[in-house]
Amino acid sequence: MSRDIYLENTPLHEALTKWLGKLDSEGIIRPLSGETIRVIDSLGRITAKAVIAKISSPFYHSSAMDGYAVRHAETFGASERTPERLKIGEQAVYVDTGDPMPEGFNAVIMIEDVNIIKSQESPPLNPPLSKGGSYRGGNSELQTQIDEFIEIISPATPWQHVRVIGDDIVATELILPENHRIRPVDIGAMLAGGHMEAAVRRKPKTVIIPTGTEIVEPGTDLKEGDIIEFNSRILAGLVSEWGGDPVRFRIIPDKIEELKKAILDACGMGDLIVINAGASAGSEDFTVSAIKELGEVILHGVSIKPGKPVILGLVRGKPVLGIPGYPVSAYITFNLFAKPVIYKWQGLEIEEPEILRAKISRQVASTLGQEEFLRVKVGKVGDNFIATPVSRGAGILMSLVRADGFVRIPAMSEGIGAGTEINVELMRSKGDIENTIVCIGSHDNALDLLANILKKRYPIFSISSAHVGSMGGLIALKKGEAHIAGTHLLDDETGEYNVSFIKRLLPDKNILLINLVYREQGLLVLKGNPKNIKGFEDLTRTDVVFVNRQAGAGTRLLTDKCLRELGISPQDVKGYEREEYTHMGVASAVLTGVADTGLAILASARALNLDFIPVAKERYDLAIPHEFFETEMLRYLIKIIREDSEFRNMVMGLGGYDISDMGKVMYERR
Amino acid sequence: MSRDIYLENTPLHEALTKWLGKLDSEGIIRPLSGETIRVIDSLGRITAKAVIAKISSPFYHSSAMDGYAVRHAETFGASERTPERLKIGEQAVYVDTGDPMPEGFNAVIMIEDVNIIKSQESPPLNPPLSKGGSYRGGNSELQTQIDEFIEIISPATPWQHVRVIGDDIVATELILPENHRIRPVDIGAMLAGGHMEAAVRRKPKTVIIPTGTEIVEPGTDLKEGDIIEFNSRILAGLVSEWGGDPVRFRIIPDKIEELKKAILDACGMGDLIVINAGASAGSEDFTVSAIKELGEVILHGVSIKPGKPVILGLVRGKPVLGIPGYPVSAYITFNLFAKPVIYKWQGLEIEEPEILRAKISRQVASTLGQEEFLRVKVGKVGDNFIATPVSRGAGILMSLVRADGFVRIPAMSEGIGAGTEINVELMRSKGDIENTIVCIGSHDNALDLLANILKKRYPIFSISSAHVGSMGGLIALKKGEAHIAGTHLLDDETGEYNVSFIKRLLPDKNILLINLVYREQGLLVLKGNPKNIKGFEDLTRTDVVFVNRQAGAGTRLLTDKCLRELGISPQDVKGYEREEYTHMGVASAVLTGVADTGLAILASARALNLDFIPVAKERYDLAIPHEFFETEMLRYLIKIIREDSEFRNMVMGLGGYDISDMGKVMYERR
Repeated sequence: MSRDIYLENTPLHEALTKWLGKLDSEGIIRPLSGETIRVIDSLGRITAKAVIAKISSPFYHSSAMDGYAVRHAETFGASERTPERLKIGEQAVYVDTGDPMPEGFNAVIMIEDVNIIKSQESPPLNPPLSKGGSYRGGNSELQTQIDEFIEIISPATPWQHVRVIGDDIVATELILPENHRIRPVDIGAMLAGGHMEAAVRRKPKTVIIPTGTEIVEPGTDLKEGDIIEFNSRILAGLVSEWGGDPVRFRIIPDKIEELKKAILDACGMGDLIVINAGASAGSEDFTVSAIKELGEVILHGVSIKPGKPVILGLVRGKPVLGIPGYPVSAYITFNLFAKPVIYKWQGLEIEEPEILRAKISRQVASTLGQEEFLRVKVGKVGDNFIATPVSRGAGILMSLVRADGFVRIPAMSEGIGAGTEINVELMRSKGDIENTIVCIGSHDNALDLLANILKKRYPIFSISSAHVGSMGGLIALKKGEAHIAGTHLLDDETGEYNVSFIKRLLPDKNILLINLVYREQGLLVLKGNPKNIKGFEDLTRTDVVFVNRQAGAGTRLLTDKCLRELGISPQDVKGYEREEYTHMGVASAVLTGVADTGLAILASARALNLDFIPVAKERYDLAIPHEFFETEMLRYLIKIIREDSEFRNMVMGLGGYDISDMGKVMYERR
Repeated sequence: MSRDIYLENTPLHEALTKWLGKLDSEGIIRPLSGETIRVIDSLGRITAKAVIAKISSPFYHSSAMDGYAVRHAETFGASERTPERLKIGEQAVYVDTGDPMPEGFNAVIMIEDVNIIKSQESPPLNPPLSKGGSYRGGNSELQTQIDEFIEIISPATPWQHVRVIGDDIVATELILPENHRIRPVDIGAMLAGGHMEAAVRRKPKTVIIPTGTEIVEPGTDLKEGDIIEFNSRILAGLVSEWGGDPVRFRIIPDKIEELKKAILDACGMGDLIVINAGASAGSEDFTVSAIKELGEVILHGVSIKPGKPVILGLVRGKPVLGIPGYPVSAYITFNLFAKPVIYKWQGLEIEEPEILRAKISRQVASTLGQEEFLRVKVGKVGDNFIATPVSRGAGILMSLVRADGFVRIPAMSEGIGAGTEINVELMRSKGDIENTIVCIGSHDNALDLLANILKKRYPIFSISSAHVGSMGGLIALKKGEAHIAGTHLLDDETGEYNVSFIKRLLPDKNILLINLVYREQGLLVLKGNPKNIKGFEDLTRTDVVFVNRQAGAGTRLLTDKCLRELGISPQDVKGYEREEYTHMGVASAVLTGVADTGLAILASARALNLDFIPVAKERYDLAIPHEFFETEMLRYLIKIIREDSEFRNMVMGLGGYDISDMGKVMYERR
């Protein structure tokens, strides 16, 4: 088999037209035939034909009130001065709401509007107490013997307080059109209209085949080189959400004959076959060959990023979709190429995603000739929606978990300048986004706990945090792109944290500085400290590799201060140039041997079971502009910081924290 | 048992505060404890605790590209002029995307950026074809014997094209917070983070007890007085949509002891008990007594419309909700009082409904002291969203089926003036509303068919039609409240339909008049014509009761013309003053004996199996302003009218139609 590294580079709209056009011309994507199910099981299904009322509702004239049924002609002339008396049982019949109107009666007088009068012979009595006394029950002897009357002081109009036949639904009327998603009220209307069964679209069956020799089931004992198979579960979830019926095939190793057999089996099982992955052009990417040998490859390679190496094919009349292995690529290509097919089979069109106009917070360069699907977080800061790109790696599933939406960068664009207004295709609702606290700045594990507790206590609010270092956070506040910034910037000259930086960077803003924690920073080393590192002085050793934090991080300032105090030049520190963006990034680098040591907080050492050589205790504050401090969501956040004992206990549980000033105002400028 | 007709009249916000406050103070609406389920079954469930990564993803350094793993230090100095050669198998190891990095290697050079060089002794070869040739496979003898090299022309930077451990997820990091609804990507992230099981909130179990001696199961042979039980199925659907687990109890007759026993049984089964109905104060409304005897009534009667007689109670620590029997009342009160409880049990807050600013198309009077929930249809006509009230009856389920949203009229308001801007709480998406053709005017059964075919052919579009008569339709066009108007107004003088009315009513608008059908109008009578009615001349008979159409209806004009031609005065026609708004309304009145005859189209007679005495053939047109004629959704509609053979066949199937001019332009003014 020869290596086929040259994919096509078809523009997305062309690829979609080709794909859907082909399936259409082959007669493959007409709405699926209906299946008959019980109406009471039909919630969320799509009608396969119009639902026409078989019976009217109500199907008899019924009283709309509790009161007396009368013949309106017999009430003429009733007034306060000339009340009219009607004999109960003959001229007036008690009816409850919903009771059928007695034959020949054509109006109801509400119980509140009648006086009950006894004939002189009999003692006063209450109005009838139960259906036993009404017309319907048939045993009206009770009243007729006592000779009761109702007295009314105004005439009844014909059919007043009567629900006539078909008041709600008239037999033969259209209850629901074809291609309608059945809601709870629709179930009621179908039952009321005499339907026990509904013809609904069959759920399009989608067979998902995970492939790859290196792929293992979740829960397997892992060894290096294994890749946990989770893409198929994401895809199955999407199929369910779209109204389809997902079937997950067993994992198929990278052997073309096994893959071919799996595809043929799948063609017998479902409407759409999805192969993940093997869609690119690597040495073990057999998918395209397998489809070619069994059927037809419509297209291989679309000029999108991520997701380029997608395969669109057709085998035995079934659409076969080969999608890339990286989870973000898989998600995007599946949305682009499977969703419209699954919708069309149900007689539906995809709803347009909600679009939000937002400003992009930083410059984004993009490859010319590829339409890029950029994941962004969005927050509403003041009056502006601000979109901030999250990780662009196709392998970063968490970029999807954390994203609020997508920005499409057109193929003909080389990127977007900072501050540009862009359209965000939302994955969360605008309301959710408006209830999100945007936290940009230094990272601390306590922020994760804070995010969790906020969501737990006040489910409508959430925190979105981006880790760009302390300085980056203050700059975000300055640019109006964040509500709060986590910061731990030590001023060498004054020995004080944060204040001088705020004065310098944010001269025009009224800022509150609230302490979150004091925390220990130290050098992380492997358990047992195999290289016997005692402090910064060891960083000049040739056998010690350091991992640094990015410029602008408070931890970087601390690193530089420590080196300066020891008279060590950065050039003499191996690995000084390798930068991580979070404490956990540093800890991970040490754990995995990428570096021997790095400066980070104790919590990160605890998390990855590393040893910790204390270097300094530092103050970590939240800088909050006054204008946001007064908002409801921030008031709740501050309340948690100041009062929530579960939060405090969890922070202490991380280790290395001093919460004695938690929630205290450290500085305020109005 | 005494009749308790005096409900409380508690304002809604007070009632909600009392209800939720009571449940909160009794400790009843804390989030339910979690249950452990498989992650792959967790779609849509709510996390009961934070999900923290157990393992990192990837959990080993892996190649991010297909290419060669190298040690970056060995690539220094490579350039176009001084290419560097690295020996395959020793200095360069082939890796596929996702393969683990060989021990000690720290960068990957993409396959596209290397030249493969053979040693002089051996013949030229392709790059390795499979994992067999890579480091991982272990059987690297093949290459080492042949002595291959890669040649590179630029140095590698450390860790280039390498996914380091934790690149996506770092062990101990927060994947999902508590109280988070699990999406497909979240399932992937949990699996990637080493979780096979998830702790999710137990679904709140809601037991729905339908009550009423007159209530029967759908599908029962119906007799007068029976009421088909469908409310419980609507409520169950809502519970499912809200994330709860509905349990439908059997129907309980109006016997207090049976009801009490049912409530106690239900308390043992579920978290929330809902009794429907018996919540008002009628003679058979035992619900309040039953709750009182078993536990506590927190409140009985809320000043809302519809839905006033709601009961909020507590039995054996379980919230018990008594809701009214009319379907709209049941729907509204269940939304108001059950939804927040079911949400809170899941640790969720109700999302705010999408609010749309719209103009109300006509005046709405409302009862002072009651907060009214008005159902409206909404359409976007030109730049304006127009809300039109649908039927306000609490018994009209179809008002919910057809509604696009609710308008809340505050208790302190006596109503809303026509043209007022109001907030609509949307039940459909704004996008759906923008894709809706607003058709106001005369009703014809062919319009129902048109609505159905449009939805069938172009699922994103729909028709919303309101039947206010021909004149009403033209006035709606004039006021910019409709896209199209169905009209059949005969000008007595010219003998022509519609044109003179358009000239007079819409002097400033450019209108196209498209023929839909010619149709027969005639007098409807019961099968066999028991009163032997031959024509309009019989309407003066004292034994004949007529049913009329409303003023402004084309059929009313026709009626008046027929009477005038015969010299009959309206005073001499019994029932002339009773007005129906649709053909089906007239047919229903005749079928049910409300009237003996009325003027309507043949299709309505056919639908209800009535006899039909032809009176006139008339032209039914659609009047469409030019500005809307060119829109996409109307182009599709016209296409159906002009070309769709299924539509034509269905219209002909109704009977009494002539479609020879269907789609033809009858008049045009630009």
